[in-house]
Amino acid sequence: MRYELLASRILERAAIHFPNKEIVTRVGEGTHRYTYAEMFERTSRLGNALRELGVGPGDRVGTFAWNTYRHLEAYFAPATIGAVIHTINIRLAPDDMVYIINHAGDQVLLIDPDLAPVVEAIADRLTSVRHFVILGEPDEMSTTLPDAASSSEYRPADVDEYSIMGLCYTSATTGLPKGVAYSHRAVYLHTLTSATPDMIGVSERDRIMAIVPMFHANCWGFPYAGTMFGASQIFPGVRPDPRIICEMVERERVTISAGVPTIWIGVLDYLQRSGTEYDLSSLRQVISGGSAVPLSVLQAYRERLGVDILHAYGMTEAAPLISANRRRSWMDDLAEQERLELNASQGVVAPGVEMKLVDENGDDLSWDGEQRGELWFRGPWVADEYVDDERSAETFVDGWYHSGDIATIDAAGYIQIVDRVKDMVKSGGEWISSVDLESAIMAHPDVLEAAVIAIPDPQWQERPLACVVTRSDPSASLSKDIILDFIRPDFARWWLPDDVVFIDEIPKTSVGKFDKKVLRERFEHHR
Amino acid sequence: MRYELLASRILERAAIHFPNKEIVTRVGEGTHRYTYAEMFERTSRLGNALRELGVGPGDRVGTFAWNTYRHLEAYFAPATIGAVIHTINIRLAPDDMVYIINHAGDQVLLIDPDLAPVVEAIADRLTSVRHFVILGEPDEMSTTLPDAASSSEYRPADVDEYSIMGLCYTSATTGLPKGVAYSHRAVYLHTLTSATPDMIGVSERDRIMAIVPMFHANCWGFPYAGTMFGASQIFPGVRPDPRIICEMVERERVTISAGVPTIWIGVLDYLQRSGTEYDLSSLRQVISGGSAVPLSVLQAYRERLGVDILHAYGMTEAAPLISANRRRSWMDDLAEQERLELNASQGVVAPGVEMKLVDENGDDLSWDGEQRGELWFRGPWVADEYVDDERSAETFVDGWYHSGDIATIDAAGYIQIVDRVKDMVKSGGEWISSVDLESAIMAHPDVLEAAVIAIPDPQWQERPLACVVTRSDPSASLSKDIILDFIRPDFARWWLPDDVVFIDEIPKTSVGKFDKKVLRERFEHHR
Repeated sequence: MRYELLASRILERAAIHFPNKEIVTRVGEGTHRYTYAEMFERTSRLGNALRELGVGPGDRVGTFAWNTYRHLEAYFAPATIGAVIHTINIRLAPDDMVYIINHAGDQVLLIDPDLAPVVEAIADRLTSVRHFVILGEPDEMSTTLPDAASSSEYRPADVDEYSIMGLCYTSATTGLPKGVAYSHRAVYLHTLTSATPDMIGVSERDRIMAIVPMFHANCWGFPYAGTMFGASQIFPGVRPDPRIICEMVERERVTISAGVPTIWIGVLDYLQRSGTEYDLSSLRQVISGGSAVPLSVLQAYRERLGVDILHAYGMTEAAPLISANRRRSWMDDLAEQERLELNASQGVVAPGVEMKLVDENGDDLSWDGEQRGELWFRGPWVADEYVDDERSAETFVDGWYHSGDIATIDAAGYIQIVDRVKDMVKSGGEWISSVDLESAIMAHPDVLEAAVIAIPDPQWQERPLACVVTRSDPSASLSKDIILDFIRPDFARWWLPDDVVFIDEIPKTSVGKFDKKVLRERFEHHR
Repeated sequence: MRYELLASRILERAAIHFPNKEIVTRVGEGTHRYTYAEMFERTSRLGNALRELGVGPGDRVGTFAWNTYRHLEAYFAPATIGAVIHTINIRLAPDDMVYIINHAGDQVLLIDPDLAPVVEAIADRLTSVRHFVILGEPDEMSTTLPDAASSSEYRPADVDEYSIMGLCYTSATTGLPKGVAYSHRAVYLHTLTSATPDMIGVSERDRIMAIVPMFHANCWGFPYAGTMFGASQIFPGVRPDPRIICEMVERERVTISAGVPTIWIGVLDYLQRSGTEYDLSSLRQVISGGSAVPLSVLQAYRERLGVDILHAYGMTEAAPLISANRRRSWMDDLAEQERLELNASQGVVAPGVEMKLVDENGDDLSWDGEQRGELWFRGPWVADEYVDDERSAETFVDGWYHSGDIATIDAAGYIQIVDRVKDMVKSGGEWISSVDLESAIMAHPDVLEAAVIAIPDPQWQERPLACVVTRSDPSASLSKDIILDFIRPDFARWWLPDDVVFIDEIPKTSVGKFDKKVLRERFEHHR
């Protein structure tokens, strides 16, 4: 029963069993539609084109692209010839971009036409790249596609399931990005597991639109799951915004969509501000991950759109899915508020993922919903090192990945992330959770976003500062006192932020999370 | 990312995440209920008891038991200590039973109390068995359980995912039974894949009652899938009959049940005969496999019970799931009759299973729904040999399992089994499908069961003979002419059976399939 678990099996399944199912991409003002049969043919051609460019087993092919059908082809083509796709985050700082491309040793870069200027600006610092390929038709640019003459014969490489097929870099808190490699086996098992009903649940009947970028943590696995199970895939193309998302859900009858909370907050805000009505009734599953979803947003989606947001949790180091939040059958009788709070937690680890909750000494803590500790993971798709990186030893110890996330776990295994180790506020020797404060503040109807950071304090070592963005609605008139009065009932007095500052926007990292590093620098001297 | 796929992970998941979910077994006139936490504790204890009996890695533990919670414990306990469960078909002929126990080298037999006499009758011919363990409380029999004093400490063995954890023998057409071994990896992947929505689809919310015996092809994987996903499991106990099945579905709110067609035909017949009304509305999925389901039965389940029967296809050699029949989204507009016909086909192979349709020379045939050939399979849970058996070379060739099933495959990959290679009727050089004729005859409302066999014919080499069982309803008065007139419109004239004989019962194999070998012997000289 030796039978290798390979990415090529995923692609072949779509070609054999779902040749006529549809893949839809927003392209400029229009729409590109084609089938898995055509996708398979073009992917085979791309694989052969890469071969002709000298790409062989183990070689790296970088992608620099939006969510489109061409990026989907690039998700599979290197894998079928034994090579490795390296998805490059298009929002990285130029120095980081140069670092990861050189560190990965990318030999070919596949580049969306409108992102070519970004690459042009760093091209002379790239040491390994031999070919720049533009993902477009010849008439779109002066560059011609190198695959114009390549054969479409499908010739998958004979590789081992433990060989590497993917590479993604994660931003480090300090220092240079760190690379995570994914084996064929890891991707295959992640795909299967994520499709089971209590995780994401993916069927041929679904029409999946991932808003999470394809350069972010394997796009949470959707391009693979969609292809294996023959779902229709909808790609939102270049720079999707809330209006585009709503229009595409309505027009393409999207059943599953996925993105970071800021996406879903943005959609909600757009619907409220614009007053436009969309028929979003096809959505059966909105998946949110990457950071906590405020209760108020969960509530608004249920009440306004009739959709329960499925909260998922993961990270680049875990391919990325660690857990998803399905309500268990024995929890159906919970009161509305308890249901929402349960729904806001990170849920239960996927089958196959093993978890520990540990104190500072690495000793096990109780799963009682009370004890707070760091989460450690291991499993068939959890990394055990950063690629060629001395920092691996800090994060991967004795086969366990130390996530840096502080959480509680309840008796049923529901994870509740309390904070990042580095984002906790240490006040007078006690820990204050920035995430708890943020969630409470964001529940105020006039607050769009809030981030709580630690600022240095001579007496208490650190104290919390709340940075708040008000809704664009001009009638929203907030003050420090209004905010503090709003959250006062829920916290001990010493947890309350010392001050509230109103800012235009919370700075975001390249993957859309709050960038507290920037805020901490900005308010370092705030008193 | 090296992380072995082991059966112990499946067990651990239930213990960690679903400790309070329920396992229900019919015991005599009463009901035994306990939780996964208790099941885990007892399974650990059984593992340790087996260790104390000298069972080590690779050793075989035979089970001789009905579907009960004790058999569920036995499904996992050997695997956790690196040993192998060998499920013994309790309906085998004594000679075959002796053969497979000796061939497997079973060291311990776990035996249901009411089956002890069967083992007693062959005990002196068993060469490897060192211990007979009765699956019962001490007061049920004069035997005491050896695990009474064993520790419940969970100490899983450190094994490789390719090591063997299960063994099941399949009856050969001629000669002795043949053994199929399952690795941990095969069982793990089968479990995950079968749980995906377009295959069986298994969720924590399900309440699964497998009627298919636990000694038959891993009970189609349900004990593993139920445990991994935390579904409640309902075991029908000793000799379940249609009344018991209906009562348990009603009382235990079963959502998924599974068995061979004769089970579902029997339930339908019982409901019609008894006139008893049951509330079977909890059933969302009835799975039928092992042989074809007549259209009339599919129709009756939909119309009478509001349940679509999910037709699954597989065999002992494939752990057993090969395919399941979900209607694809693009087939929703089919007319009722076409839907039924689609529903009656064997469906589409599971993700991971690779399939070929070949002619007598092993050359590929078209997937056009017309060309008929033998099905070959390979995949992560498809066997590549019979255990210690010279006959392996006939069935497993170049990594492909030659199934002996004759089928068509349509463009979407739907398999339609036409017949077994050995059951086809060869008339004047042309093939007649016994299965097609049987399905047509069973559509007659007064027919309970029908089997079509080849009988020797001096002119045509072979001709079809229909063996028909009428419904118990005494008003059913059938004749050869009524049967032939009924099916005449659907077949070429030379396909029509030369004769129709009415018999009391179709002989069944030990796993409930029509035993045509017996019929062929009985009617060998029929003219």
